[in-house]
Amino acid sequence: MENNLRIIPLGGCEEVGRNMTVFEYGKDIVILDMGIQFPEQDMPGINYVIPNTKYLRGKEKNIRAIIFSHGHMDHIGAAPLLLDKLGNPPIIGRPFTIELIKFRQEDYSSGSSKRLKITYIKNIKDEIKLGAFTIKFFQVDHAIMDAIGIIIHTPSATVIHPGDWMIEHKPIGRKKIEYRQLSKLPKPTVLMLESIGSTNTEKPITEKQMFDNLERLIKNAPARAIIATFSSQVQRIKQILEFASKVDKKVALDGFSMKMSVEIARKLGYVKTGKGTIIPINKINDYPDRKIIVLCTGAQGEENAVLPRIVNGEHKFIKIKKNDTIIFSSSVVPGNERTVQRLKDNLYRLSDNVIHSDVMDVHTSGHSNIKDIQEIIRQINPTYFIPVYANHFMLKEAAKIAYKMGIAKDKIIVPDNGFVIEVNKQSIKVDKKKVPTNYIFVDGSGVGDVGEIVLNDRRKLAEDGMFVIVAVVDKKTGQVKGSPDIISRGFIYLRESKELLAQTRRKVVNIVNKTTGSDQAVNWTHVKDEIRNKIGQFLFSKTERRPIILSVIIEV
Amino acid sequence: MENNLRIIPLGGCEEVGRNMTVFEYGKDIVILDMGIQFPEQDMPGINYVIPNTKYLRGKEKNIRAIIFSHGHMDHIGAAPLLLDKLGNPPIIGRPFTIELIKFRQEDYSSGSSKRLKITYIKNIKDEIKLGAFTIKFFQVDHAIMDAIGIIIHTPSATVIHPGDWMIEHKPIGRKKIEYRQLSKLPKPTVLMLESIGSTNTEKPITEKQMFDNLERLIKNAPARAIIATFSSQVQRIKQILEFASKVDKKVALDGFSMKMSVEIARKLGYVKTGKGTIIPINKINDYPDRKIIVLCTGAQGEENAVLPRIVNGEHKFIKIKKNDTIIFSSSVVPGNERTVQRLKDNLYRLSDNVIHSDVMDVHTSGHSNIKDIQEIIRQINPTYFIPVYANHFMLKEAAKIAYKMGIAKDKIIVPDNGFVIEVNKQSIKVDKKKVPTNYIFVDGSGVGDVGEIVLNDRRKLAEDGMFVIVAVVDKKTGQVKGSPDIISRGFIYLRESKELLAQTRRKVVNIVNKTTGSDQAVNWTHVKDEIRNKIGQFLFSKTERRPIILSVIIEV
Repeated sequence: MENNLRIIPLGGCEEVGRNMTVFEYGKDIVILDMGIQFPEQDMPGINYVIPNTKYLRGKEKNIRAIIFSHGHMDHIGAAPLLLDKLGNPPIIGRPFTIELIKFRQEDYSSGSSKRLKITYIKNIKDEIKLGAFTIKFFQVDHAIMDAIGIIIHTPSATVIHPGDWMIEHKPIGRKKIEYRQLSKLPKPTVLMLESIGSTNTEKPITEKQMFDNLERLIKNAPARAIIATFSSQVQRIKQILEFASKVDKKVALDGFSMKMSVEIARKLGYVKTGKGTIIPINKINDYPDRKIIVLCTGAQGEENAVLPRIVNGEHKFIKIKKNDTIIFSSSVVPGNERTVQRLKDNLYRLSDNVIHSDVMDVHTSGHSNIKDIQEIIRQINPTYFIPVYANHFMLKEAAKIAYKMGIAKDKIIVPDNGFVIEVNKQSIKVDKKKVPTNYIFVDGSGVGDVGEIVLNDRRKLAEDGMFVIVAVVDKKTGQVKGSPDIISRGFIYLRESKELLAQTRRKVVNIVNKTTGSDQAVNWTHVKDEIRNKIGQFLFSKTERRPIILSVIIEV
Repeated sequence: MENNLRIIPLGGCEEVGRNMTVFEYGKDIVILDMGIQFPEQDMPGINYVIPNTKYLRGKEKNIRAIIFSHGHMDHIGAAPLLLDKLGNPPIIGRPFTIELIKFRQEDYSSGSSKRLKITYIKNIKDEIKLGAFTIKFFQVDHAIMDAIGIIIHTPSATVIHPGDWMIEHKPIGRKKIEYRQLSKLPKPTVLMLESIGSTNTEKPITEKQMFDNLERLIKNAPARAIIATFSSQVQRIKQILEFASKVDKKVALDGFSMKMSVEIARKLGYVKTGKGTIIPINKINDYPDRKIIVLCTGAQGEENAVLPRIVNGEHKFIKIKKNDTIIFSSSVVPGNERTVQRLKDNLYRLSDNVIHSDVMDVHTSGHSNIKDIQEIIRQINPTYFIPVYANHFMLKEAAKIAYKMGIAKDKIIVPDNGFVIEVNKQSIKVDKKKVPTNYIFVDGSGVGDVGEIVLNDRRKLAEDGMFVIVAVVDKKTGQVKGSPDIISRGFIYLRESKELLAQTRRKVVNIVNKTTGSDQAVNWTHVKDEIRNKIGQFLFSKTERRPIILSVIIEV
């Protein structure tokens, strides 16, 4: 009997991030990526979100390997937490990807990278047998070195998964990547396509256009050039470093991830600069300003990141000067628009030369647009199509693109996280039952201990603050002794609200005395409910705010 | 002696919103606009921000009038609060603008609109003398009816202020607006130009393109057409209503501001629909789906707004059906990107026909782009240039545009809120002293009572929650009686953290007993500090979280 190939996205198919996909054939399991998702606005205090791996509980021994497509955090970030949890199955990746995982692992728990069972993909033509699976790879263009696409062969179907990808139409120093050869893989083929670009109608900026601009800016900068970009744009960072070496400028790197990525890339020989091109940040004042390039993180205005610290005057070695050239070689991550606008406002106050994508093409995205999606589908010509690694509405739009190109509706699946997709030579289908994929929040050292209840309280606390009432009650009489204590934060400025507090205290005394006044045994839960409701109403009537009201009653 | 004209922007020149500008000549004061600013992400719980009018304190009697350029909330929203505060000076505006102010005034405080001293601009050619000022008006294109530009004549200079503006290059049923005549006003002229478009290189979508798309979508909708737009897009709402009337469809309006705007516009005769075109929302099921258009607010995903309620299944009369056509005739306000993405995700799950600007031109902005800014500067050819009503970086970019067009640097001022700009025939200069313009927050019924301290507590509470410790101490022995009470919200799920709580209680007892153990009088502040510091460290060591720690100590 022929087995079905089962494809289960545990993350990455509803929102961008925490990418992780399970492939199951018979008992064998192979997994692609283990990423984190950055928290949304309504997840205050959360550091990041990881995929839910409940489905794999009890199946750990069947996991033949985890393959990592590339080294970005939304593809490798959850590895330190999940590999350990899954009993450290073998991991597979290109050298740069693996070195980044090792670094993250060590950063999370010192010594833990020694437990990793690593298979390096030394050559893109490597073939790896994993139980019923045969894994092959293909080259893709993305913002980071060693990004690869994955081919998963099973007797029932062949999956083609480019990971994150783009088509660079004018690559520098290499050929444009072709995907045509993938159309010859054994059918049926399933194309799982990262589809972030499915609503993007903009003409892409080529690498060449961008570098021509960046190089001109760097060369002609009247003083220092301060370039802020994503630490994930390792390919670009490499090119800037190598250009700096060519024009004999010095580069100071700042930002934890950026320094770390460059260090690893240099160790692997991926970045080739002259000796002394990279200088420590504390040495930038030893050279004339015209010789200095600062490459840093923080272009999203993230609190405590390098660029915001420079702008706020909190950076130890860099104060912006009027004639510094500041370049945002970055896009704005959705949700960060206002923060970035404020950062720009402040930068424009300090420097006369602030350059960003609105005024010059100094950034290209690592992702595709509609035309590229059409092109890759045309070249690969898959049997089945599954758009992945994007927001649901983007997946739907990618499905529309595929449908318009002639792929029948019953050969397209728009997955949600947790879908169990069964594929064989005859059909592609979704099981009725989904596997669990609810958010696992990481907050400080806690993994999964913050849930909706705690988050909901945080949202409420942020909205109108809190109001705590402590009353001491005489055991014998049931009457309040003295005046209740009130502590409040985030609700109102207490020093200027003395009358409101006095009134509240009187009300609390009345509520307690009345509720405890009868001869029956006192129901303290009822007393507290009364305080919460009545004081809540009272405070709302006075302020139109609804702080969280808590009370403590102490019997003495 | 010649007086200087003094121009003081109280808001609108650092971030978008709370637009308000003071013009002073001798003792006479004229004010333009009184808008609100919507809260930023780091202002949790705040409803909106209003301009700071401290500068006008003591000068109320000199205020000759407030002129309102148009009826959007960032231009009129603060009127109910500020007019009263300034002793209800006369207000001037076009009928639609004034009726909207009256409505907002009544909404804020019933009966208060009777106190307004109103001068209607009946004809765009009206001239109004206000002390040393003579005010004239000119037509502008913007998203709302009755938007006007203002000319402020003084003996020293003439100010030209288009308010919010755009150039509609293919207007429907009217001529393209020309500004050339403004170049003939008495010199020197000061062009104060709303400059939101100064980094916008995109080709504008014309009204005609947009309406062709909207009309086709409405006409061909297989079932209901649900159109979400800004309630501020009154011009568009009018055109949709009139088109619906033409093709004999019924329109149900939903959303407080939208219904209100349409009602006022109809009363003024600005919207002309057949009888029965507008139907109440609870009657939509009395007609075939193909006859129904729903016009609603909530395209930004605002909590409790109409479209999100429909999508979440909380709307009383509308459940989305697979063949409904949902149209976002709107852009995404910076900061709302993620919320809108989520809204789209959910809509795409419910309907197969979701249309937004990424997939079709169904929205045009009410603002200009770089080319339009060049065109208006060329036409008006001002002596002095002051970009306003946008983020600081946009103002700087607008200044660069003007400079490149030949306006000398010393004739361009990039203002901050609170700048005092002195203008006369010889020069334009900024005083050294700024007037106060710090944020005035409106939260519930409180105006200005929430400041940075309260906001900072809210941010901290949102991050890691709070932790309250209540200990009862024996007066005689200084020792804790029983076990301290702990209440916490937003920190950790207490039910699953019993061991942590038990350890914390023991630590509290130790801290109190040790600190109160000596024979000297107990310093309770010190005890509380000790609890905050030591318990803070302890909780951080266990969780890597920093809740706000508060303690109450009760002596009995």
